[in-house]
Amino acid sequence: MKLETLHDLYVNELRDLHHAENQIIKALPKMIESSNSTDLRNALANHLEQTRTHVERLEQVFRLHNEEIEDEKCKGMQGIIDEGKDLVKHDENLGVRDAAIIASAQKVEHYEMASYGTVRTWAEMMGHDEAARLLQQTLEEEEEADKKLTQIAMAINPVAVRRAG
Amino acid sequence: MKLETLHDLYVNELRDLHHAENQIIKALPKMIESSNSTDLRNALANHLEQTRTHVERLEQVFRLHNEEIEDEKCKGMQGIIDEGKDLVKHDENLGVRDAAIIASAQKVEHYEMASYGTVRTWAEMMGHDEAARLLQQTLEEEEEADKKLTQIAMAINPVAVRRAG
Repeated sequence: MKLETLHDLYVNELRDLHHAENQIIKALPKMIESSNSTDLRNALANHLEQTRTHVERLEQVFRLHNEEIEDEKCKGMQGIIDEGKDLVKHDENLGVRDAAIIASAQKVEHYEMASYGTVRTWAEMMGHDEAARLLQQTLEEEEEADKKLTQIAMAINPVAVRRAG
Repeated sequence: MKLETLHDLYVNELRDLHHAENQIIKALPKMIESSNSTDLRNALANHLEQTRTHVERLEQVFRLHNEEIEDEKCKGMQGIIDEGKDLVKHDENLGVRDAAIIASAQKVEHYEMASYGTVRTWAEMMGHDEAARLLQQTLEEEEEADKKLTQIAMAINPVAVRRAG
């Protein structure tokens, strides 16, 4: 694919995000299943629902631009998810495993925050107001999910420390 | 490696960050060379210097804990850097290429922000005040670098739009 204009780069990044969101939808059930804390399970289950909405919003954006809904393989998200899987494979105690799941989920959130921030800015610059609004809405939900995970981490981690001590 | 305690997980994440920072040191010269804007080149060159300091700080943290300075292969950062390399390979115009470099660099920053936030919190929880202070210092520098890149993006991107228009 040629990336000659900012529009090309923007569509390429939207396709990268579409692939990333679909990878998250595949990875989240295993993360939920591996979680010990009820709060963490609920937060991840809620995020799985939200992620499906994020995919729909991306597809709305593609339609606004009359662009094909395609995926661009997202190596960044693939790497982050693989790393998370490696961590959870270890035979750690349940509190430590929850801490690992949160650390991995926050990397996922931060990847998306960077990427949605980028496409939102590019949409604004090119005068795509409706697309910018939709992308901003998802960005805010990713930021909220990240904050929620920090709150849960604060509550879970001391348990991990105690059990390990 | 067994990850039985929060300390194990913390050391594992520090080694992941050590590997990530070293990958950034390898990747930045090519990104600087590919940049068109003087502001972007200067910001990335400045960040290369900072990254060397971040590696030294991580090594200080390992010494504080009497832990070996080792690398844990960081698949997340590897994926993000590979993705950035793929983008820059394309034959886009110089403004568009700068926009792509910034997008990639902001993903790098966000990965680090997530990871330094995590280890800083864990260090605090385990009462490692000096380590927490050092990790917080790097976190703030990563956040600053990210903000600086957003400022440069705002100045560069309209050029990309104009050239493409």
